[in-house]
Amino acid sequence: MTESMTEPHTGLTEHTTGTAEQETDLGDGHEATMLLERARAEVDPVLRAVIGSLPGPIRRIALYHFGWQEADGTPARGGSGKAIRPALVLAAASALGGHAARSAAVRAAAAVELVHNFTLLHDDVMDRDATRRHRPTAWTVFGDADAILAGDALQALALRLLAEDPHPAAPAAAARLADCVVELCAGQHADTAMERRGPGEVTLAETLAMAESKTGALLGCACAIGALYADAEDVDVAALDGFGRSAGLAFQLIDDVIGIWGDPLRTGKPAGADLAARKKSLPVVAALTSGTPAAAELAALYTQPHQKEDLERIALAVERAGGRDWAQAQAADRMARAMQEVARAVPDPEAAGGLLALAEFVTRRST
Amino acid sequence: MTESMTEPHTGLTEHTTGTAEQETDLGDGHEATMLLERARAEVDPVLRAVIGSLPGPIRRIALYHFGWQEADGTPARGGSGKAIRPALVLAAASALGGHAARSAAVRAAAAVELVHNFTLLHDDVMDRDATRRHRPTAWTVFGDADAILAGDALQALALRLLAEDPHPAAPAAAARLADCVVELCAGQHADTAMERRGPGEVTLAETLAMAESKTGALLGCACAIGALYADAEDVDVAALDGFGRSAGLAFQLIDDVIGIWGDPLRTGKPAGADLAARKKSLPVVAALTSGTPAAAELAALYTQPHQKEDLERIALAVERAGGRDWAQAQAADRMARAMQEVARAVPDPEAAGGLLALAEFVTRRST
Repeated sequence: MTESMTEPHTGLTEHTTGTAEQETDLGDGHEATMLLERARAEVDPVLRAVIGSLPGPIRRIALYHFGWQEADGTPARGGSGKAIRPALVLAAASALGGHAARSAAVRAAAAVELVHNFTLLHDDVMDRDATRRHRPTAWTVFGDADAILAGDALQALALRLLAEDPHPAAPAAAARLADCVVELCAGQHADTAMERRGPGEVTLAETLAMAESKTGALLGCACAIGALYADAEDVDVAALDGFGRSAGLAFQLIDDVIGIWGDPLRTGKPAGADLAARKKSLPVVAALTSGTPAAAELAALYTQPHQKEDLERIALAVERAGGRDWAQAQAADRMARAMQEVARAVPDPEAAGGLLALAEFVTRRST
Repeated sequence: MTESMTEPHTGLTEHTTGTAEQETDLGDGHEATMLLERARAEVDPVLRAVIGSLPGPIRRIALYHFGWQEADGTPARGGSGKAIRPALVLAAASALGGHAARSAAVRAAAAVELVHNFTLLHDDVMDRDATRRHRPTAWTVFGDADAILAGDALQALALRLLAEDPHPAAPAAAARLADCVVELCAGQHADTAMERRGPGEVTLAETLAMAESKTGALLGCACAIGALYADAEDVDVAALDGFGRSAGLAFQLIDDVIGIWGDPLRTGKPAGADLAARKKSLPVVAALTSGTPAAAELAALYTQPHQKEDLERIALAVERAGGRDWAQAQAADRMARAMQEVARAVPDPEAAGGLLALAEFVTRRST
């Protein structure tokens, strides 16, 4: 897969809490930061309890992956990601059902976070990604087999949490989460299959569909599950799903732009990293399929072996072919759609505030 | 893992229906054969419907794995295993709740079969097993990533079937099945970890525990889920779980004996195959830990590189160290325990008949 699709290098999931980057966020992102911290505080005890119930060797891998233990079993200070998905579950429940729905949805929020982490464990094995959350990935430490097994166990724990939840929304939430797992699998399949194809063989439509399955689906599912716990009408559950999907795609577009042209505010991946890896990210595919003279130049450059001095030429070709402008316009369009969806389901702006703050947080580099 | 643990080479799962081997079973195994065929006929439509709902590329892998399609998508005539686990779900429901419970449990039986196949797909990747049900394994055809993704999707489908099932037993069945997945993962972890250790470093207790987790747990879970759909008391659900676990361990012991000394009635693995692979099967570990002079000889032979002419010497050492007698006595003991468990929960021998027939079928080479 393209790393930028699952290993977002903005705030979506992959930075640990408490980094310097987060400190810069106390301006307009203050509400989102508080929502994320609160979600983490409520969901972590549930996660720690269910992971603590795993048999020893599987538990050890899961605790390492979550950043709670070092590989040797000693406690770790690392955080376990920013809890965007659990925060979306809780914000959606709160927006549509107030405090009671929010409290009832904590276990479901933990289930969504377990599914997210199961897919990270497996995707890292498939993609041979060596680093996650600033640490060696589980498969590099414990081997492929144990990383696969720990992922399998986390999926089981997620659906177990919902199976044991007496809330009337739990079965529908479990069905929805299982469907989302299938969509995530299809998205990961499409991503790995597309990476094997040549730069002229990938359409923009399939790249967008892949990004929606890989990044949008679980954000949409998180919001929809929150709505289910608020006993929302089907139409509002669907609107919340659409909100999460659109915000997820907006995030991915922004993230892909950063993966090419970099972000002066962040310390992390150097600009051009996605180009060096010849990733078929959204701006690149938009450029390749633009029919412009720059598209042909880009296709030629993308099939050549990596030369460091080419990165600027490639980035320029993507820009001249319209890839950057397209991605930024698309991101703005998706965010507008997300806002429309949430306004449809939650007309009161105050009630919708948490969802909007979280959506802006994950895509805040678009401003 | 030891292949004999998950890829049983007797009737437990891995032979396709309609082989010559099955034809020899029309004597005392007639009732079991009928139960298996009936289970297959009832469960297959559910399996085909949910697998048919998967996105194209993932569906293709699943249909190949189940033996319903060739790799190129053309229909295949191969069967998808003998449906032991679904038959146990249905037999347990029938034994404790009659026809109505049996009918209600068909979706749950399909869910158990999906979990079984999810673990087969993943285990084959981890163990680099190249053949299953007389065909190349999915990872050899589609690659590791797609085999992992198809397994992930089958686990999701299993728990989705139960999440959508309005029967009052469905949540408890889902929780039990998720717990079983965790136990299967722990068993697979133990198996791969034990294979990496020297012949003197593995205890008989941990080998038995591993075999119970890998082979007994899902058979026990199948029976327990059937009992849940019959609205059985907790004590009877536990007895049915114990029945399945004990029968599963008896099967594994017999299967391990066959893996060393072969079975004149079957065409398949040659005698000695498990020894050639230096598998730490139950008779071997019993022999290694027997404290006899033959144990020391066996340990020395097991650390040497494989020489074909050694296989007879190794088999003789296992036998002289008591490994064969121990395994056969243990298998008989486990079958006796299985019978006691079922008699406790289902005192009427006629009602228990299906469960007993299936238990005898999977271990019939013990007679």
